[in-house]
Amino acid sequence: MSVSVEHRVATLAERLQSVRTASEQLIATLEPEDLGLQGMADASPPKWHLAHTTWFFEEFLLRRADLAPLVPAHIGAEPGWSYLFNSYYDAVGPRHPRPQRGLLSRPTIAQILAWRQRVDRSLAALLVHPELTAWDKPGDGALTVTELIELGLQHEQQHQELLLMDLLDGFNRNPVAPVYRDDGEGPEPLFQERSAATHQPCRWLHWTGEQGEGGVVSIGRTVVRHGPFQFDNEGPAHRVWLEPFAIASRLVTNADYAAFIADGGYRRPELWMSEGWALCQAQGWQAPRYWRHPGLEFTLAGLQARHPEAPVRHLSWFEADAYARWAGARLPSEAEWETARGHFQSDLEQAFGLLWQWTASPYRPYPGFEAAAGAVGEYNGKFMSSQFVLRGSAFLTPADHERPTYRNFFPPASRWMAAGLRLARDPHRSAPELRP
Amino acid sequence: MSVSVEHRVATLAERLQSVRTASEQLIATLEPEDLGLQGMADASPPKWHLAHTTWFFEEFLLRRADLAPLVPAHIGAEPGWSYLFNSYYDAVGPRHPRPQRGLLSRPTIAQILAWRQRVDRSLAALLVHPELTAWDKPGDGALTVTELIELGLQHEQQHQELLLMDLLDGFNRNPVAPVYRDDGEGPEPLFQERSAATHQPCRWLHWTGEQGEGGVVSIGRTVVRHGPFQFDNEGPAHRVWLEPFAIASRLVTNADYAAFIADGGYRRPELWMSEGWALCQAQGWQAPRYWRHPGLEFTLAGLQARHPEAPVRHLSWFEADAYARWAGARLPSEAEWETARGHFQSDLEQAFGLLWQWTASPYRPYPGFEAAAGAVGEYNGKFMSSQFVLRGSAFLTPADHERPTYRNFFPPASRWMAAGLRLARDPHRSAPELRP
Amino acid sequence: MSVSVEHRVATLAERLQSVRTASEQLIATLEPEDLGLQGMADASPPKWHLAHTTWFFEEFLLRRADLAPLVPAHIGAEPGWSYLFNSYYDAVGPRHPRPQRGLLSRPTIAQILAWRQRVDRSLAALLVHPELTAWDKPGDGALTVTELIELGLQHEQQHQELLLMDLLDGFNRNPVAPVYRDDGEGPEPLFQERSAATHQPCRWLHWTGEQGEGGVVSIGRTVVRHGPFQFDNEGPAHRVWLEPFAIASRLVTNADYAAFIADGGYRRPELWMSEGWALCQAQGWQAPRYWRHPGLEFTLAGLQARHPEAPVRHLSWFEADAYARWAGARLPSEAEWETARGHFQSDLEQAFGLLWQWTASPYRPYPGFEAAAGAVGEYNGKFMSSQFVLRGSAFLTPADHERPTYRNFFPPASRWMAAGLRLARDPHRSAPELRP
Amino acid sequence: MSVSVEHRVATLAERLQSVRTASEQLIATLEPEDLGLQGMADASPPKWHLAHTTWFFEEFLLRRADLAPLVPAHIGAEPGWSYLFNSYYDAVGPRHPRPQRGLLSRPTIAQILAWRQRVDRSLAALLVHPELTAWDKPGDGALTVTELIELGLQHEQQHQELLLMDLLDGFNRNPVAPVYRDDGEGPEPLFQERSAATHQPCRWLHWTGEQGEGGVVSIGRTVVRHGPFQFDNEGPAHRVWLEPFAIASRLVTNADYAAFIADGGYRRPELWMSEGWALCQAQGWQAPRYWRHPGLEFTLAGLQARHPEAPVRHLSWFEADAYARWAGARLPSEAEWETARGHFQSDLEQAFGLLWQWTASPYRPYPGFEAAAGAVGEYNGKFMSSQFVLRGSAFLTPADHERPTYRNFFPPASRWMAAGLRLARDPHRSAPELRP
Repeated sequence: MSVSVEHRVATLAERLQSVRTASEQLIATLEPEDLGLQGMADASPPKWHLAHTTWFFEEFLLRRADLAPLVPAHIGAEPGWSYLFNSYYDAVGPRHPRPQRGLLSRPTIAQILAWRQRVDRSLAALLVHPELTAWDKPGDGALTVTELIELGLQHEQQHQELLLMDLLDGFNRNPVAPVYRDDGEGPEPLFQERSAATHQPCRWLHWTGEQGEGGVVSIGRTVVRHGPFQFDNEGPAHRVWLEPFAIASRLVTNADYAAFIADGGYRRPELWMSEGWALCQAQGWQAPRYWRHPGLEFTLAGLQARHPEAPVRHLSWFEADAYARWAGARLPSEAEWETARGHFQSDLEQAFGLLWQWTASPYRPYPGFEAAAGAVGEYNGKFMSSQFVLRGSAFLTPADHERPTYRNFFPPASRWMAAGLRLARDPHRSAPELRP
Repeated sequence: MSVSVEHRVATLAERLQSVRTASEQLIATLEPEDLGLQGMADASPPKWHLAHTTWFFEEFLLRRADLAPLVPAHIGAEPGWSYLFNSYYDAVGPRHPRPQRGLLSRPTIAQILAWRQRVDRSLAALLVHPELTAWDKPGDGALTVTELIELGLQHEQQHQELLLMDLLDGFNRNPVAPVYRDDGEGPEPLFQERSAATHQPCRWLHWTGEQGEGGVVSIGRTVVRHGPFQFDNEGPAHRVWLEPFAIASRLVTNADYAAFIADGGYRRPELWMSEGWALCQAQGWQAPRYWRHPGLEFTLAGLQARHPEAPVRHLSWFEADAYARWAGARLPSEAEWETARGHFQSDLEQAFGLLWQWTASPYRPYPGFEAAAGAVGEYNGKFMSSQFVLRGSAFLTPADHERPTYRNFFPPASRWMAAGLRLARDPHRSAPELRP
Repeated sequence: MSVSVEHRVATLAERLQSVRTASEQLIATLEPEDLGLQGMADASPPKWHLAHTTWFFEEFLLRRADLAPLVPAHIGAEPGWSYLFNSYYDAVGPRHPRPQRGLLSRPTIAQILAWRQRVDRSLAALLVHPELTAWDKPGDGALTVTELIELGLQHEQQHQELLLMDLLDGFNRNPVAPVYRDDGEGPEPLFQERSAATHQPCRWLHWTGEQGEGGVVSIGRTVVRHGPFQFDNEGPAHRVWLEPFAIASRLVTNADYAAFIADGGYRRPELWMSEGWALCQAQGWQAPRYWRHPGLEFTLAGLQARHPEAPVRHLSWFEADAYARWAGARLPSEAEWETARGHFQSDLEQAFGLLWQWTASPYRPYPGFEAAAGAVGEYNGKFMSSQFVLRGSAFLTPADHERPTYRNFFPPASRWMAAGLRLARDPHRSAPELRP
Repeated sequence: MSVSVEHRVATLAERLQSVRTASEQLIATLEPEDLGLQGMADASPPKWHLAHTTWFFEEFLLRRADLAPLVPAHIGAEPGWSYLFNSYYDAVGPRHPRPQRGLLSRPTIAQILAWRQRVDRSLAALLVHPELTAWDKPGDGALTVTELIELGLQHEQQHQELLLMDLLDGFNRNPVAPVYRDDGEGPEPLFQERSAATHQPCRWLHWTGEQGEGGVVSIGRTVVRHGPFQFDNEGPAHRVWLEPFAIASRLVTNADYAAFIADGGYRRPELWMSEGWALCQAQGWQAPRYWRHPGLEFTLAGLQARHPEAPVRHLSWFEADAYARWAGARLPSEAEWETARGHFQSDLEQAFGLLWQWTASPYRPYPGFEAAAGAVGEYNGKFMSSQFVLRGSAFLTPADHERPTYRNFFPPASRWMAAGLRLARDPHRSAPELRP
């Protein structure tokens, strides 16, 4: 092994342990009954997330026929578990219907944690296997062993966030309003940051291009072998023409949004996309998903007072879009967001770690996009219809799991993610007043 | 206190402890994750059954304003629990939607068991209260304290059976086919009995009335104060004209039913009620609910071989009715069943303890029926439409919870109960051959 | 041919022409666009009724292989029409889905009327065929030619009523409130009768049996070959024990029912069957189906003032049952209704020609019931679950289409039929006051 | 009036008569029963289209308070009709639910045609009103009288196409397969053209930009007052960066598509967007919507042989996208389509008059888009979520109703439009073979 490979592998081994442990720490404060809780078809129980992320490593790495020499003694899932814990990989085979994940009281958490340990041991052994070097050279496009492990860890970090947002959904459906953690730390360490953030008034940041009339920018990132990780949907880097635009330095707050509601935002169809208005009426939406009257919102810390200056969250795209129209503005495109992030750097506040930010961009492949070969190619590429892109990251996102090119995506009706919004506008239009 | 009241109260105190303990023993072999399992909207999680039966005592007895002097120190449910654990009593107030009971990961089982203990202590104290005698005299029709406790215990025994049949439904939805108990005892002590039962060939038992041309019989039982317990829907006793009939000495077996299937029973609409045939096609029914190919059935002991001579079970009324038509027979009316039970005594085999037996009778009030006053009057009386009566009792029914006049009832499409069937026919029609 | 057969056949030929013509007269005032109107899945378009009744004659008579010598030159339906116009006869074959009948803009009414004429000509020729006598002797249980024709005419008369009640449903869904006929004659000749009927105050009629303690009565009618027509479900005659009862001399009126509403009838769950209460809330029921605020109701004559003394109509069984409970009474069983009709004769007012009357009796076979052989056996026998019996007849029923033994039936949730109610009660209970 | 206004108005008057007459000619061959046919919630009955297009003129022009002096004697819709024939304009008021349009047997076609005549007379009078000039000057952004009339005519032309595609859907649901017109003319004058089109083999047309490395192009058209008509969503003109691309000279044919099916196209999830695959399985898709086995397709001329060299039609976006992936290609973006149309001119065959062509572009506003003021602003702008853009025009589109900038849009699951597809690809990837 060359030095650089040794270092890379050693780093990965540490990271493996760290990420896998973090997942299990997330359930430390939960009651056993919580582990099977599935609030709705879109969500999954905590136990299922712990199993599925394990399945991912076993299915795509430890069970691969060509890797058998490297993982000879692996004892993995029991019969039938692959069916239970495959999420959506058609190439792997049939799977348990998603809406019924909450019915799987078995296997127990003890069985799943034991399985996690077996898989972790095999992965650790794999990383110190003397022949790993030979296997880890990129060949005809297929991912190497270390690339697959890194993908599995990124995948697990996504599920850490999903676990928490799914749990919030499930707890929200319980009239006794359970508390996940209320020590002011852990999943919601953002209260101080939020108050800090409000020291700066919100401003319009203007981008005009070099000539003042817009211009061509480069968006996305082309994958580099052994370079920093990225998902396939973040590339390739490509050119986009942008007109001049203005973007808000900060996110829309609860106080901003309360003004929208007070002005009839949920009763005025002219502010909404037709599809969103139909949904708003059918569902009886009157506020963001977790707002509770009066002045409260449901959080992982239970029912809490709603901070007026905290960014408004758990909005659908339809609500974000309607709010922007009401405000005389619009949502930024993802190219505008990414360009602003690069251009204004820290002047674009609250880009990461608070809330995902809805963009005006439907989730579609970048020009020249190619999904990874094989089943892992299903990871992102097959969801590129009827969804919108969110940029940034959220308070539920693991700390090292964010990038300026990261493309998160959800259907426009979804509200259970930690999503908020940031305004943009065309500079030639009169600027709506921003609350300070 | 008079001697008889003392004795009655002492007996009730023992029974209280016995029944309440039995409920908790039912969950002894379950994993924590099983306690919240709700397989479908018709079913409830084990934990919910334990809570609801406790709510019943607290709501209808311990919280009654006029009984406050007798239960001064009771500390009961936490705020909001009454909303969660009210099943269907409109007079008590609004309630958590039944299909969402599986989402209540909180309160935990520990909280519920502690609540059960508090309620049990209060009930025990109530039963030794020196003023109980004064309160326990039947007045203007309302139930007395001891009558309400007895009703609560009968109610809890019904939920013991419901807990097990709901659990069977929930486990059946899990591809790993969990086992509740497989020691050949406990909830399924019927394997020996079944083989014993087959020593006698099935015969037609003929009832003709005293004159040989049918006659008036008395059905049901009129409640007697301080007499043996009965539900309100079992009375009053009343006259019914019966034509001569024949009834099978035993239940239809798996082998019998397999012949029906082999003869196209699930493909021949002429054998079915129109409503049942539509359901059969929409649901893709091809066998009783828990049959698994080949020769297996799912049980509380997991997947087991299907005994040909065991009575066929987990049938809807539509299937039972279609089978009877195919066999050239029909289902007995509930008056026929009850008359045969009284007339033929033990010649009517398998009346109790194996399977509830579908009858041809819609569930309607007996002539002169009056529901109990107040909320407990909702117990039976409001369900008297679109259901059919089942008679007897099942292997899941607590041993002392059966009576010849007992009227169980379920919608004709329901299949998750421990239900089978017994044939009847008009004697002037040619008798279909019964398998020996 | 014997004289009696000649007479019978001649009478039938006249009746054939009369009934068939009556169907066509029902659409005389309709616009072409109305002919395809299907307001809901339970209803059918007027054009479909005209076609289906024709299909019935062709399928069950003119196409029968053994009758081919008697109908040699019949030119009937075009290819595919049997699929379109079979209603629910599984023995005949697959059929067009009922909810999609309104999509059949073709065949046109002109094609269907021409088909009716061809069928009528063939039926007329059949009735004068010299060999008819030989074919018209009852054999092994199958219906004879004249019996089948009579069955077809009774069937067509039922569809005349269905056509009108379906049309009322369809027109009711149109905000412009179309008028079918408003000359005060035709389908609603009851306005004068209703006012006449109110000259007599409503009274309780008491039946006690010969000994004053109830007794055995005979219900239903056993079919007699060449006797007056009856449907198979009206027989056989059989004995029933009846307790003494009281029955109201007249139907419940709009004024009566308005008092129920004013007293919170649609907001008090304790008055309702659980199934009905759930439906009431889900559907937002607040009044009978065609009541319109204020003081109006939708009728075949369009929007009309609601007469307080006219019998209340277009109620579900659930509403009728709840009203009766509110009134301190109950619905009569069908045996009580039929006994009262025979015993009190014209003192039981409004028995026929105004509204079908819901009974407390689920629709089930009489003891000894056997459905007719072959496909026509599907006519009544396969609907004997989850429905209730209605007795009498309605203002939409053809004048000669009523009998004391007639058993109409609908699901308890149905409200689009011309159904009302008459109260009954147990005589030992205090009599609720009847409005005069 | 200036000369140019006089000319413009005179031309508009002619066009008014021509377009309005064309709509009525479309129903000339229909039976009266067809006029109310609504096959599904997405479609509308022919009669409704004729009424709604009339309502559009009356609501947005003839009823405008400020125009009252110009249309003093107009007698329009009867009370309640505005509720019936408003399609989706929230600003106008509530409206009849779309899925129930087929239940409106009244008003009759005669009433609607009479209404059309009244409106046409008022519009004609308006166009010769001496004060029109004063009213027809563009003011603060609101549309002028002549602009509104032109918008109404464009709107009516869209509904002419909708009427035919809705009718095709409705007829397709009728097992007797009705024929709308089969003279080889009228709505399907394309059979000759199609065979003509096949004289040229399909080729890849390569666009590389001026420098050979892509470049900035201008897309869309900015509205010019009194210039040629365009919908608001076609503008403003704006710059877009395009990478080099290749686009097929012709549409995908039935033979091409049959090869996709034969290769398992409907059974291979890896070819599909996840959302489309779920739909494909749930709906049981196995071929384009109107294909019938063997070798037939349902058309407005009834069942017809399917021409292998005719362009495949009535595909959802999901099918078009899956086909393109299977072929090793992709769908063009709308910017690519529009650029190719301008660059290659007639080398881009079959651009108009055959089938709308699905693009890869979600339907979103162009940069700087502003909807028209008032209710007509709801025309296009509120539908900009969860739909895809189609370009070109179809054989059902009125002949003068097409433009290179025209943006048609439908949800990706829709299949009842006259939609086909044209392939595109990135030039650096290996070119899939095109069938000649």
